[in-house]
Amino acid sequence: MTGFVSFVGSGPGDPQLLTLKAVDRLKKADAVLFDDLSSGPILQFARKGADLVGVGKRANRPSPKQDAVSQLLVEYARNGGHIVRLKSGDPGIFGRLEEEIIELKKAGIAYEIIPGISSAFAAAAEVGIPLTRRLSARRIQFITGRDITGELPDDFNLTALSDPSAITIVFMGKQTFAKMQKLLEENGLPRDTPALLAEAVATPSQQLIKTTVSKLAKSLKKDTSQHPALIFYGPLSYMDFPDDN
Amino acid sequence: MTGFVSFVGSGPGDPQLLTLKAVDRLKKADAVLFDDLSSGPILQFARKGADLVGVGKRANRPSPKQDAVSQLLVEYARNGGHIVRLKSGDPGIFGRLEEEIIELKKAGIAYEIIPGISSAFAAAAEVGIPLTRRLSARRIQFITGRDITGELPDDFNLTALSDPSAITIVFMGKQTFAKMQKLLEENGLPRDTPALLAEAVATPSQQLIKTTVSKLAKSLKKDTSQHPALIFYGPLSYMDFPDDN
Repeated sequence: MTGFVSFVGSGPGDPQLLTLKAVDRLKKADAVLFDDLSSGPILQFARKGADLVGVGKRANRPSPKQDAVSQLLVEYARNGGHIVRLKSGDPGIFGRLEEEIIELKKAGIAYEIIPGISSAFAAAAEVGIPLTRRLSARRIQFITGRDITGELPDDFNLTALSDPSAITIVFMGKQTFAKMQKLLEENGLPRDTPALLAEAVATPSQQLIKTTVSKLAKSLKKDTSQHPALIFYGPLSYMDFPDDN
Repeated sequence: MTGFVSFVGSGPGDPQLLTLKAVDRLKKADAVLFDDLSSGPILQFARKGADLVGVGKRANRPSPKQDAVSQLLVEYARNGGHIVRLKSGDPGIFGRLEEEIIELKKAGIAYEIIPGISSAFAAAAEVGIPLTRRLSARRIQFITGRDITGELPDDFNLTALSDPSAITIVFMGKQTFAKMQKLLEENGLPRDTPALLAEAVATPSQQLIKTTVSKLAKSLKKDTSQHPALIFYGPLSYMDFPDDN
């Protein structure tokens, strides 16, 4: 009578960016455990009568401990039924998915993963640009700008990250970007490398700011926005499109 | 009376991985220009009576020239109506989107981009693993294994690609992987680094093979499969899950 868990990617926030498979799982679920970033209008697809449980992961605010979230998921699944664990963007990207899977495996609970639209791809789509370019951007990298203490990760591969021919996308990096940009500049990344700040992508609060790495580092020193954000830098193609900027 | 173009990500192939927004655009389109990899059951969502036009991009086979595809798209849009340009996975990742946008901009034709599920995220979901890991995989990179001549790109950042702590995903890399693995090994990537070959992800022909970089390089020398494939290598978490391998 043990339950089954579907880890479901909610995409960045716009319910229209849910997949058909995600909607199907939401409709079938007996309980939905959701993060703040994957809630709002997306929960409209949940079955009436389903338990809707906020587990409260938030950008820049105190959140329940990951262990507590994993244990709650195991408890729900042990009670039987179909549990949806809704995670913003794609569930396998910077979402602490590994810890939750390990706890399910220990408890002998089966699961599946339904991929979601990454906020990185949604942001590029909103700007109207491709992320790769045939000759000038053939490597894209996703990194996190903070470790669990909130500081810059100490294992940065600075050669990889300072490469001006790669597109780099920094998740959760607003607080640490000033420090990061200094390191990148010391390692050869030009100060005028194009950058994009994408906040609250695919939600009514969306902001897309085209800038450069040095200007962005400066402006983020006084940033007080609570919205989740991505930082892009590298040879972003909007610089070269005929009628843009 | 000029038309409007929606670049739509079809996801990897399973129609259930289309977004609600992609389905909406397919239902409204007067014409759908599709690649081979984004066709099949996905086209069932197109409006009856819409023009369905295969523009024939295929893995490992001769394809129409990109210029011809871009020109065809412009011609359709000039005739008016709503054109969907369907691209497999996410349209902005290794999909020659930039060339098509530049031609639309020159012709004064408006467009939007609807993001799609990347085959990379779908493959990880099918395997049941997260791509990032809190302490051991905090950088993911996407690269292409071939340039337009079919050879390894000559601008590889070998320091970035030989980093054993990053997850690297190689698109269109089967033909060149033996050569690439030799370069990676010379630059310090251990021969026994975990690797995954993901073919025809989220289709009935799907194959997922867990291996190592050196074994994969050897087996791909005699590969004759025509299916599109992704190669993953790095600290893939399935190595550490309690009941796997």
